[in-house]
Amino acid sequence: MGDEFSRIARYLAPLAGPEGLGLTDDAALFTPPAGAQLVFTADQMLEGIHFIPGDPPALIARKLLRRNLSDLAAMGASPLGYLLTTALPPGIDESWLAAFAEGLAQDQTEFGIKLFGGDSSSSRTDISLSATLIGHVAPGEALRRNGAKTGDDIWVTGTIGDAALGLRARQGTLPDPSGYLINRSLLPSPRIGLKLAGIVHAAIDISDGLIQDLGHISRASNLTAHIQADLVPASQDAAMLGAKYLEARLTEGDDYELILVAPPGNADRLAAVCGSLPVTRIGTMSEGEGPVVTRDRSGRLVNLKHFGWQHF
Amino acid sequence: MGDEFSRIARYLAPLAGPEGLGLTDDAALFTPPAGAQLVFTADQMLEGIHFIPGDPPALIARKLLRRNLSDLAAMGASPLGYLLTTALPPGIDESWLAAFAEGLAQDQTEFGIKLFGGDSSSSRTDISLSATLIGHVAPGEALRRNGAKTGDDIWVTGTIGDAALGLRARQGTLPDPSGYLINRSLLPSPRIGLKLAGIVHAAIDISDGLIQDLGHISRASNLTAHIQADLVPASQDAAMLGAKYLEARLTEGDDYELILVAPPGNADRLAAVCGSLPVTRIGTMSEGEGPVVTRDRSGRLVNLKHFGWQHF
Repeated sequence: MGDEFSRIARYLAPLAGPEGLGLTDDAALFTPPAGAQLVFTADQMLEGIHFIPGDPPALIARKLLRRNLSDLAAMGASPLGYLLTTALPPGIDESWLAAFAEGLAQDQTEFGIKLFGGDSSSSRTDISLSATLIGHVAPGEALRRNGAKTGDDIWVTGTIGDAALGLRARQGTLPDPSGYLINRSLLPSPRIGLKLAGIVHAAIDISDGLIQDLGHISRASNLTAHIQADLVPASQDAAMLGAKYLEARLTEGDDYELILVAPPGNADRLAAVCGSLPVTRIGTMSEGEGPVVTRDRSGRLVNLKHFGWQHF
Repeated sequence: MGDEFSRIARYLAPLAGPEGLGLTDDAALFTPPAGAQLVFTADQMLEGIHFIPGDPPALIARKLLRRNLSDLAAMGASPLGYLLTTALPPGIDESWLAAFAEGLAQDQTEFGIKLFGGDSSSSRTDISLSATLIGHVAPGEALRRNGAKTGDDIWVTGTIGDAALGLRARQGTLPDPSGYLINRSLLPSPRIGLKLAGIVHAAIDISDGLIQDLGHISRASNLTAHIQADLVPASQDAAMLGAKYLEARLTEGDDYELILVAPPGNADRLAAVCGSLPVTRIGTMSEGEGPVVTRDRSGRLVNLKHFGWQHF
């Protein structure tokens, strides 16, 4: 284990907010914002599972934070800080740690968060990382999955499926001349800061795939989501690859866009709140016949073999 | 990944408090106790590092919680709930998960905490676990490492070094006829619930070894800790093994007892607060010549080769 203690402290202590007490105590001390509800979420990044061995450490760090920030976005919460656990195998050197800490620092600035504390350890073979994000929301304004109503419109932010195609491009099985898809896979953009309370009935972020994550809203709300596949927005780079990848775009995860379910009258308010971020209507909630029904533009059922990544 | 989602949800969802929203949303919603400060801490349990492959899953679960609870105890905080991340390799079966969840349930009851949320994933080879514990403390009552004063007494709770010897017994290198030492290694007793505010100047829990953890108080307080090795309390089972293991007892971790630094006049109040839990005076804080100076009963310096586990 050698000088693990001083090595980690050197890179991580400068990232700590006052709550972290310089990372020199047993725990962080945090005074909650008056009157707010707190929102907690935890997510992992594991070598060989969530990232490819050899991926740039700064991007691993930033994606770890952003996956968690996306969960806060899905709850309508604003981020405050985080705890970090790192388990690093032998062979992780100073330059890896320095780049990892630099990635954390960059996104701390970008999203206005601080390191509150955590734990660092050795591991035997794989890099194993987790972060717990702490956010806040005004009481009663948290977005849930279970609020969808019959007749509500289903919207998505941004474009869907870029990360799935980007992963393929990184594996060398499809072209990505501009690097856009690869970047979307390595560095998602969590949709933090949208003032959605009072406009949407339900929300979730797309981590496991559009169909599966929309299915969570359907099940929690006891409804069926009907979507039209060709309405699901594709980026220019994804569209260029053709219809062949439709299923991958609909069922594979890692986009970290939001699915928003809103009453039909709220289209303008929703667009206004999202500003320059595109939101696209892809379907409607109705009484149930299974969680998600996908049709093409002529109304024929689209048969999807896979339904997204399976992990809680 | 198969039915990871439903499998984990089946075992973990019953452990969730109302804050966890049944583990069916993106994050937990938590209303902080009025007027309290919150205390956050995160710790890991990694296969081959913090536990031996094949260790009973219920005990791994309980030790994961207890290591974190001990950090709250060191801050003088009371526990409320936790987030859990699990990364499980192929081959972890239903019975492992069931026993792991049963261990969590048992210590949730014992310590009055609930599962708030988390994340479950696959891993490639090793089990990797983390927990973030959330506790609370009255404002101004948190115990820190940096409050020790010259002339303060140094106390420890319970007995020191049992876990280090228990680990050796589990590895077959020393006898443990009663199983007491092994139990202390597998299932520590975090010293939650002592009303130490106003009685002690500084506190820390012994996770990395008495000498190293006491050194953290010394450094944070800019003082030197002088301890007398033979005053460090040994359990009956540890004492039977003889003086040969003194260095292991002083420098190896995992005891999760507390080091408490208190003004000399506070011995009676400290004993009263600790009730049936023994507290033993092992030394004194004074002006500095290095973090920790260890002497035998005749005043000779005890030379320790190792200074405890090195990890932040």
